[in-house]
Amino acid sequence: MDKIKKQLEFLIEIDKLKEIFRQSILVNSRRNENDAEHSWHLCMYAVVLSEYAPKELNIARVLKMLLIHDVVEIYAGDTYLYDAEANKTKAVREQAAADKIYSLLPTEQGNELKELWYEFERCDTIESKYANSLDRLQPVILNYMSQGERWLEHKVHKADVIERGYRLMNYAPQEIKEVFLKILDDSVEKGYLLP
Amino acid sequence: MDKIKKQLEFLIEIDKLKEIFRQSILVNSRRNENDAEHSWHLCMYAVVLSEYAPKELNIARVLKMLLIHDVVEIYAGDTYLYDAEANKTKAVREQAAADKIYSLLPTEQGNELKELWYEFERCDTIESKYANSLDRLQPVILNYMSQGERWLEHKVHKADVIERGYRLMNYAPQEIKEVFLKILDDSVEKGYLLP
Repeated sequence: MDKIKKQLEFLIEIDKLKEIFRQSILVNSRRNENDAEHSWHLCMYAVVLSEYAPKELNIARVLKMLLIHDVVEIYAGDTYLYDAEANKTKAVREQAAADKIYSLLPTEQGNELKELWYEFERCDTIESKYANSLDRLQPVILNYMSQGERWLEHKVHKADVIERGYRLMNYAPQEIKEVFLKILDDSVEKGYLLP
Repeated sequence: MDKIKKQLEFLIEIDKLKEIFRQSILVNSRRNENDAEHSWHLCMYAVVLSEYAPKELNIARVLKMLLIHDVVEIYAGDTYLYDAEANKTKAVREQAAADKIYSLLPTEQGNELKELWYEFERCDTIESKYANSLDRLQPVILNYMSQGERWLEHKVHKADVIERGYRLMNYAPQEIKEVFLKILDDSVEKGYLLP
């Protein structure tokens, strides 16, 4: 009973991920998206686009990784991709957050999930490469669907998106990379993104 | 390119799940939870509590099922568990919604996901039994954490929760069933739930 109690305490604590807001906005209501919604949406991307990933992909591993990839932000906050200052302290803040949140779980299980988050961050396995490329694609599509509202607000250029999207450019399945570049070109043409 | 375009259109359409609100409320801000957040949270429950499920459980199948289990509500709306009238028309409304939303995808893929939703609804495999029991546990925990705010508002009795929770009572792993009953007893004792 003590073990399941710890697990439920963790499951209750991560309810807070629903209140960590990102820069992306929803297609209809245009309010900011939160991390829990973003994580669910990325998992749906992973399921629907899996045919473009390498055949040996372990989809369960990808889904678990995407489910937890932003959990550290409960304590570390969301770091906007285009905020250079905040990105300098991101790694330290997130490591402390990971130690704190995963210590709520039984030790072995907490370490397993933390290790999965490290794998996502290192981006050195087929699962983490696929997961990371989707994490770059989804916000670009939300930006496109909202006529670049946030891109224009932050004066983002196409080159910025490509630079920050290097994990997609280098690791994404070919079809996904093509779609990503096509959306960027289309966004520039429509005036959603600076050339 | 035509295939991936259809897949992206589906992924864009389901953004709407983030705007379908449920009766459960979040632990901190106490606003209503939406279906996308709920689906993410259930997946986390599935990962964290998987040791209590039967050994032969296919966790990838459970996660996919939970990711999509409420997608029909984009068109059919959320049907509150304790709303008897709305529950009479639920099946018809949700079937029409499933036909509509999954037809956005390439045929084979749309049928696969629709079949997975049928499996969840039939609740006749170890994956769908586990998934359904979590779908009953998570709102009970949110109700408990919010001191029964919604339960008291709708004058819900312990017997109502047990009756509507029959999928948990009959199909959940023993440890999860015990936790569920313990939370209900505790809720009655604390005055969150009517005896």
